[in-house]
Amino acid sequence: MAAAAPPPPPSPAAIPETIVPETDPPRHPLFARIRLGTIFDVPQLHKLIHQMATYERLTDQFSATEASLAFTLFPSPSPPPPFTSFTVFILEVSPDPFPPTPQDPSNFSPILKTFHLDLPIEDSEKDIFRSEIGGDVVVAGFVLFFPNYSTFLAKPGFYIEDLFVREPYRKKGFGRMLFTAVAAQAAKMGYGRVEWVVLDWNVNAIQFYEQMGAKIQPDWRVCRLTGDALEAFAHLNI
Amino acid sequence: MAAAAPPPPPSPAAIPETIVPETDPPRHPLFARIRLGTIFDVPQLHKLIHQMATYERLTDQFSATEASLAFTLFPSPSPPPPFTSFTVFILEVSPDPFPPTPQDPSNFSPILKTFHLDLPIEDSEKDIFRSEIGGDVVVAGFVLFFPNYSTFLAKPGFYIEDLFVREPYRKKGFGRMLFTAVAAQAAKMGYGRVEWVVLDWNVNAIQFYEQMGAKIQPDWRVCRLTGDALEAFAHLNI
Repeated sequence: MAAAAPPPPPSPAAIPETIVPETDPPRHPLFARIRLGTIFDVPQLHKLIHQMATYERLTDQFSATEASLAFTLFPSPSPPPPFTSFTVFILEVSPDPFPPTPQDPSNFSPILKTFHLDLPIEDSEKDIFRSEIGGDVVVAGFVLFFPNYSTFLAKPGFYIEDLFVREPYRKKGFGRMLFTAVAAQAAKMGYGRVEWVVLDWNVNAIQFYEQMGAKIQPDWRVCRLTGDALEAFAHLNI
Repeated sequence: MAAAAPPPPPSPAAIPETIVPETDPPRHPLFARIRLGTIFDVPQLHKLIHQMATYERLTDQFSATEASLAFTLFPSPSPPPPFTSFTVFILEVSPDPFPPTPQDPSNFSPILKTFHLDLPIEDSEKDIFRSEIGGDVVVAGFVLFFPNYSTFLAKPGFYIEDLFVREPYRKKGFGRMLFTAVAAQAAKMGYGRVEWVVLDWNVNAIQFYEQMGAKIQPDWRVCRLTGDALEAFAHLNI
């Protein structure tokens, strides 16, 4: 959270000896970590998805349960390796630094970042969103993504289904941190593109994505076959 | 390919005894088959994708090679099982019936359908698109799809990246056959939805999809991060 380029230092002769050195305004550190989600995150994940449905005014489409999320996202006994199927990153925050995590080159090493905030964050739902790892660690958001494919590029990519940051943590750089984690992973894997959709009235989100280098595709429309219209195909005579 | 409802039959008294019985107009049978694509289909697949880029006026975005398609779609030595990752259905047509294929419950049994056409199809590119299985079998189209996920439903689905039928075979029901094969597979697997995108000027496609029971989502916009803007994330300090 460094400010833009600092002003040039004054020449030594110009500093009166009695001047009080200017200090930075007090800052409130908050430690953030992105790690892979596991089946133990399902209770918090379920609540996050419901909050997202509320934000998107789409609760009528919400039917996920903790059991159905666990069954489909973290199938036992052997969930697929991360990035090969549905993958969840969990964003946690803590007033204390996270302990160091061992580097695991075959997997994903958690991403750590320290935010220096002007004001401490008031989180009235802190107890509800306490992380499954315990302590003072709170789940602040998540991103769910999975591989997609471009035939034109002949390359895989990632499709971001959801990116959500809880209300008290918005507009502070946490969404950028989550998005960057996915884009960086795609770039490191040599993937061709990252795609997602945004509601056309969500101007804040559109502005955010454009700042990240994304292009909004104005002339594509999403088509969906679901519910009874999809189920009718199960017994259709092709 | 049945016509719409026939006119009501004339009352028996009105039929002179000398009338020549009306016969159906001559029909030209064409045998169609949908099967899983394999690495041996890559040469035809590469040409199909290029034709699709031309149709969509997007050849500037086309950079796939046969080698890159083979490497990414059919990774050796062990490509993932169908439907768990990028999956290709190949549509073949033949003037002769296809030989019976053994039922394989662990995999996908090819879908057969006989089309009765009013006129034979003139296919000037027949030799270029001869199927890798040989004989008089010609590749007429393909669909490429892969799993996606709805957090609201807590269910997987399929995302259709491409559905393409070569020009001589359009408006005869082949696109419907390909689309139906994917939707039927999703429905049989208990999946929650099938999604894809369509260009807003492609009114024929939109009409076709709506006839199949799909809803166009008017207020979602596709966002894409690709090329240099994506690669910049590879070395970004989060």
